[in-house]
Amino acid sequence: MSTGKKKIYVNGINEVPLPLRQIEIVERKGVGHPDSVADALAEEVSKALCRMYIKEIGHIMHHNTDETQIAAGQAAPRFGGGSIIDPSYILLVGRATTRVDTGKDVVNLPCTPVALKAARDYLSRTFPNLDADSEVILDARLGMGSDDLTGVYKASGYLANDTSFGVGYAPYSITERLVLQTEEFINGKMKKTIPSSGQDVKVMASRIGDDITLTVACAMVDKHLDDKSAYISAMSEIHDAVYDNALKIAGDEKVSIKLDVNTGDDYDRNVFYLTCTGMSQEMGDDGSVGRGNRCNGLITPYRPMSMEATSGKNPITHIGKIYNIMSKLIAEDIAEKVTNEAEIRVRILSQIGKPVSQPLNCSIDIVSAGAEADPNFSKWKAEAAAVADGWLDNVDKVTELIATGKVRTF
Amino acid sequence: MSTGKKKIYVNGINEVPLPLRQIEIVERKGVGHPDSVADALAEEVSKALCRMYIKEIGHIMHHNTDETQIAAGQAAPRFGGGSIIDPSYILLVGRATTRVDTGKDVVNLPCTPVALKAARDYLSRTFPNLDADSEVILDARLGMGSDDLTGVYKASGYLANDTSFGVGYAPYSITERLVLQTEEFINGKMKKTIPSSGQDVKVMASRIGDDITLTVACAMVDKHLDDKSAYISAMSEIHDAVYDNALKIAGDEKVSIKLDVNTGDDYDRNVFYLTCTGMSQEMGDDGSVGRGNRCNGLITPYRPMSMEATSGKNPITHIGKIYNIMSKLIAEDIAEKVTNEAEIRVRILSQIGKPVSQPLNCSIDIVSAGAEADPNFSKWKAEAAAVADGWLDNVDKVTELIATGKVRTF
Amino acid sequence: MSTGKKKIYVNGINEVPLPLRQIEIVERKGVGHPDSVADALAEEVSKALCRMYIKEIGHIMHHNTDETQIAAGQAAPRFGGGSIIDPSYILLVGRATTRVDTGKDVVNLPCTPVALKAARDYLSRTFPNLDADSEVILDARLGMGSDDLTGVYKASGYLANDTSFGVGYAPYSITERLVLQTEEFINGKMKKTIPSSGQDVKVMASRIGDDITLTVACAMVDKHLDDKSAYISAMSEIHDAVYDNALKIAGDEKVSIKLDVNTGDDYDRNVFYLTCTGMSQEMGDDGSVGRGNRCNGLITPYRPMSMEATSGKNPITHIGKIYNIMSKLIAEDIAEKVTNEAEIRVRILSQIGKPVSQPLNCSIDIVSAGAEADPNFSKWKAEAAAVADGWLDNVDKVTELIATGKVRTF
Amino acid sequence: MSTGKKKIYVNGINEVPLPLRQIEIVERKGVGHPDSVADALAEEVSKALCRMYIKEIGHIMHHNTDETQIAAGQAAPRFGGGSIIDPSYILLVGRATTRVDTGKDVVNLPCTPVALKAARDYLSRTFPNLDADSEVILDARLGMGSDDLTGVYKASGYLANDTSFGVGYAPYSITERLVLQTEEFINGKMKKTIPSSGQDVKVMASRIGDDITLTVACAMVDKHLDDKSAYISAMSEIHDAVYDNALKIAGDEKVSIKLDVNTGDDYDRNVFYLTCTGMSQEMGDDGSVGRGNRCNGLITPYRPMSMEATSGKNPITHIGKIYNIMSKLIAEDIAEKVTNEAEIRVRILSQIGKPVSQPLNCSIDIVSAGAEADPNFSKWKAEAAAVADGWLDNVDKVTELIATGKVRTF
Repeated sequence: MSTGKKKIYVNGINEVPLPLRQIEIVERKGVGHPDSVADALAEEVSKALCRMYIKEIGHIMHHNTDETQIAAGQAAPRFGGGSIIDPSYILLVGRATTRVDTGKDVVNLPCTPVALKAARDYLSRTFPNLDADSEVILDARLGMGSDDLTGVYKASGYLANDTSFGVGYAPYSITERLVLQTEEFINGKMKKTIPSSGQDVKVMASRIGDDITLTVACAMVDKHLDDKSAYISAMSEIHDAVYDNALKIAGDEKVSIKLDVNTGDDYDRNVFYLTCTGMSQEMGDDGSVGRGNRCNGLITPYRPMSMEATSGKNPITHIGKIYNIMSKLIAEDIAEKVTNEAEIRVRILSQIGKPVSQPLNCSIDIVSAGAEADPNFSKWKAEAAAVADGWLDNVDKVTELIATGKVRTF
Repeated sequence: MSTGKKKIYVNGINEVPLPLRQIEIVERKGVGHPDSVADALAEEVSKALCRMYIKEIGHIMHHNTDETQIAAGQAAPRFGGGSIIDPSYILLVGRATTRVDTGKDVVNLPCTPVALKAARDYLSRTFPNLDADSEVILDARLGMGSDDLTGVYKASGYLANDTSFGVGYAPYSITERLVLQTEEFINGKMKKTIPSSGQDVKVMASRIGDDITLTVACAMVDKHLDDKSAYISAMSEIHDAVYDNALKIAGDEKVSIKLDVNTGDDYDRNVFYLTCTGMSQEMGDDGSVGRGNRCNGLITPYRPMSMEATSGKNPITHIGKIYNIMSKLIAEDIAEKVTNEAEIRVRILSQIGKPVSQPLNCSIDIVSAGAEADPNFSKWKAEAAAVADGWLDNVDKVTELIATGKVRTF
Repeated sequence: MSTGKKKIYVNGINEVPLPLRQIEIVERKGVGHPDSVADALAEEVSKALCRMYIKEIGHIMHHNTDETQIAAGQAAPRFGGGSIIDPSYILLVGRATTRVDTGKDVVNLPCTPVALKAARDYLSRTFPNLDADSEVILDARLGMGSDDLTGVYKASGYLANDTSFGVGYAPYSITERLVLQTEEFINGKMKKTIPSSGQDVKVMASRIGDDITLTVACAMVDKHLDDKSAYISAMSEIHDAVYDNALKIAGDEKVSIKLDVNTGDDYDRNVFYLTCTGMSQEMGDDGSVGRGNRCNGLITPYRPMSMEATSGKNPITHIGKIYNIMSKLIAEDIAEKVTNEAEIRVRILSQIGKPVSQPLNCSIDIVSAGAEADPNFSKWKAEAAAVADGWLDNVDKVTELIATGKVRTF
Repeated sequence: MSTGKKKIYVNGINEVPLPLRQIEIVERKGVGHPDSVADALAEEVSKALCRMYIKEIGHIMHHNTDETQIAAGQAAPRFGGGSIIDPSYILLVGRATTRVDTGKDVVNLPCTPVALKAARDYLSRTFPNLDADSEVILDARLGMGSDDLTGVYKASGYLANDTSFGVGYAPYSITERLVLQTEEFINGKMKKTIPSSGQDVKVMASRIGDDITLTVACAMVDKHLDDKSAYISAMSEIHDAVYDNALKIAGDEKVSIKLDVNTGDDYDRNVFYLTCTGMSQEMGDDGSVGRGNRCNGLITPYRPMSMEATSGKNPITHIGKIYNIMSKLIAEDIAEKVTNEAEIRVRILSQIGKPVSQPLNCSIDIVSAGAEADPNFSKWKAEAAAVADGWLDNVDKVTELIATGKVRTF
């Protein structure tokens, strides 16, 4: 089905939705995982540039800061408090518009300082056990560009930078909610009672039928743990807190949950997941943008995913960012307004050089065993198309949600 | 279905295989694309380390070099030959075993020199228009580790480094073959007749029904093109050569092919895709490992994909590498030996700490409208399980195929 | 003349002391000059390591951090306040003991974090117009070493690291005092009344006979100057303040002083010495350790000088640091206690592998037209030797003066 | 005495020339010493830029590449051949004109590629035991500048970049010749017979009266030495070869020579000066431009020296380079043509903004006990002034000697 000039296709797919299938695997790399740190820094830099451009020029200028490389350091954690021997190294990579001819004036813009400040501020406020001034080395290689605003401004709005696509789905399955909210719990509310838990948390769930095995790896912070027995106690506390919280998340869902925490530990051989900073990048774990969570916060190998890194891309022309996030928003709205029994999958395909608001097509799948036979199906189709149509008319709203940090990118 | 101790499940899925569906999108980033350069360098470094370890120690030691960051340079291409103003910067990142206690002796190993040599050699032999000595800056931050071989050697073989999974499918659709083989043609045979075509080639195909639109973006090399008209002629030659080749690839398939080359050009405004080196990393395009092609050489948003970077990981313990490649090999064997009418999807899930040869399970989907009703289905199931069983008994063979460069990783 | 085991030679040299000669050239690079910034960072890092070693191990461990490279950035200063476009890049280089086996325990030490913290703190507190978090990139490549304290500790004290020498002289000439104290005035007291003056100040004096031409180059800070006329006023204020202060320094000395400030300016062509940070490293001026002032704060081409960088070297074994500073201290004491009419030159030569307190020889020149004919000469010789002897017996005192920052190194 | 517009002063100084005094210390850091490597790379880069500018633009453009930082690597040498564990890191720093508006055309110039190529070529051809492709990391941070040749070209020639000075002296003393020629011998002729000797050679001489102690530290190359006894034999061969050569250098001079080689060795404790590459930068020794030899190839603490780094500066406007080299050339010509009995010291002082060929003054000292009383003195003065006058009229010749590598800079 296509509405007006926009090509919006809605199809029913007679398949079993993922949550009803036999196997499901879901993973989330927490905020302290090196890949998430890279994603966050890339996105923080982009948001800070957006704010700076709006303040100095009046609107967002072209930039892409969607590459950040973290090379791990060396640390010597020990109970009671160890030492960072060699800081991890963080290289911000990308490009930004540093010079703008506004017609009246040539304005030079402090892009790299803005980027470094945003990155350091993020590290400081997010990782209480890391000294962002001395325990990481923060470097930047941002290519510089210039822009000329003296000509006629593009009346038609921003143009797609690429022939590319975005993909999203909704609603979250119970397994997905467990993974997402468990990490949020550990790095949120739980920190108040168990400060020895670090930010590098990895949560993985595998569901076979109704049995969900939740595996949590949580870097522990040495200075908050006096000795081995303190570590073992903390493990027990974490297990209990996370398990209780998981039961709350599951609510009435018909699943049984098994929880493992730090399975790599071996107390007999004195192997613990102990760190100085709560971040495994201090010792051995590198990180990079786009290697971790998708923009719904998860890695879901049984679901459609885009390879595009969402974090760090500019929110005005970059299809890989805007359409991925918009696909997710559309899918969520459809799931909520139309049906949350089915699995809603949305794909939006761009045309290079055409306005971002005019994709080549937007394809919506309503996945449900017997979807097309459902008596409500034709109503669903119309409603789904209307939801998509509404969002496509409001690309600016997606840009704004991104630039103000109101949607996640990892 | 499970065979013996290994849990191998084979399921029939009553879905329409991708090649028969309405929409398909496939992309390949050619060898000169910055993400592919990053993938290749990561993998070349790993292979060179494998060779060095085998020579010096007798077997492959632990390493992971699966992060490489390329920060774009600055170039001033011009017809007849321009200049690289600022080299692109390539940072190899990872870790390797540099010190081995063999019991008799402590051996120090030149890991970073081996890595740098492998990387520079690859650049030199792959990119004839790039001076790898002066037009890139090659840096490395490889963490060092040590290992002790004096204890009892792990008789049971290598252990999985993570709870993770691999995923693969077969056979390629016609759209996929067109994309893959078009890039191989442009960067292979076509180079002899059209040397002005660079290595940074991006091929995208979107199929709607039987209509395939093939879009090629090919960086052109300035020194081989005297002027605008030479460029325009080269475009025409490339179009004809690629189109002819595409028809050969398609053979008897019922598809119609439309081809666009360098659609970003605008001759009136003198906009050309012109470079000094045939690589867009010379000016503005950054690159990173694991952001481009999956280990089957493609990006296929409508197919199951793993987020794991395959390139650069060690081929002895790293699930994200071994199981992805093995899944693809199993799927290909099943497609060939059992049925290539269906879409074969394979997923292998590891257990951290267990031998790589003992996955938690291997799940095979035979996707075909009416799969389970097919009279051959139970035979297919048995045969598919036997194929998987054979590969799982021979993880070493996968390791060897990787270490000797006989399977692609991007 | 040799006293006891120490070989201390005192000679009279029948030459005209420098201050009485026809020509003299003296230069000082102020604290904001890139070479001085490099010197200061090297020394701050060394002092911070000393404090850390004393706290963690009980005494100073081996280190040398006497190399720091500053690569200039890019800035766009403008009246009222411009922008840093590309931060300057600062690379700390050297080595330090990161791992100590104390017999009871192996202690890992956070050398690079300590170095980065010391460097950033220095930048923050010294350069009020620089945002040390975002307007410089601070990197470090400190080689790591280990030490074993389990054996018998070197009872004889620290051993000289090299066959090398130190050189010093006293007293300062009037030209030298003018240069040194002018920079101290501009970067000290004058800042309160003229905050638009930056820290990158270069003072040069050339004396021909009694005529001293004092040339001051002072980077001005854009945000404190609204426009060209504010700049011109500031120049006038600086000229008056510096000139008045110079007259005070000169006191009763028979010299005439001519003062030039920012001679490179060209108001007609709108050429000003304008910066965002008060530091020329923001745009175009690189810096390096050991390229600027000697350890008496000056560059004095007509005086004996050592090529050795003093800043950043460890103060326990490094001859190039200890003997240079001790030579200056000895010369100053001799000038004060014995005669300040003559030019006192001191050279101390080490023997590699011998204790620092046992130099090969210490050679003292008493330079004065008719020195040896002076009736006081033999008394001078004895007194000078006694002064040297006293210092050589107290190398530890020099170490302490250095480690606690009580003597300058640049 | 002043000739015409040029202020050339010639003075007789009634002092004892250095070679006749009691004590003399002379040092040379050989071509493989990290400071010399830094000097050489800086100068090679400048010369390569000069050649490129002449080829592309017709004359040398502004540049300064007089900063290079070498951060030492890690190596594990062993008899028979060890390994480089971590390459040394070399950062080229400076600035160059990358963009020239010739009036007809804007030309972009490949400065950083030219710099990297020159540096790598130098390393390859100078250090046979170093693999310049993999055992060093070569990085560059060259600031870019642009120039506009469309205006009236500076008819008066190049202008001094600074108020600065150059200093030189002649002739070499016997101690100085011994040091200079010993290093040249070890790194020249001797390499054919003793290939195990590396390029990192440090030669120091201290003369007390007529007794010269020559101390040589020579990095040995592990792969050319099978074991300890081979090392000991090589030491003996080097001692004999260097001593014989020293006697030849000394010729009829009334000096006695004592020679020590690798005094840091301790055979009982198996301490050898053993390296993989013949360069101590492989392990622990950092290097930097301007920290080693002056432009006469020596460090001579009892002679006048300039702190200015000569290497890497451009040879058209940089006083610190041109006047240092010209001072030495003038002194040498005076010593040869006028008198080589006296010590000739030359100082040339620039005026910022005035042509390089018009220094503020050139001051020549003829140092000799009883100089002014010498009957030839007034003839000497006239001849010395004429020599200086001739060179000052031919600054271009100095530029050419530098740009074509016909004078040394370190």
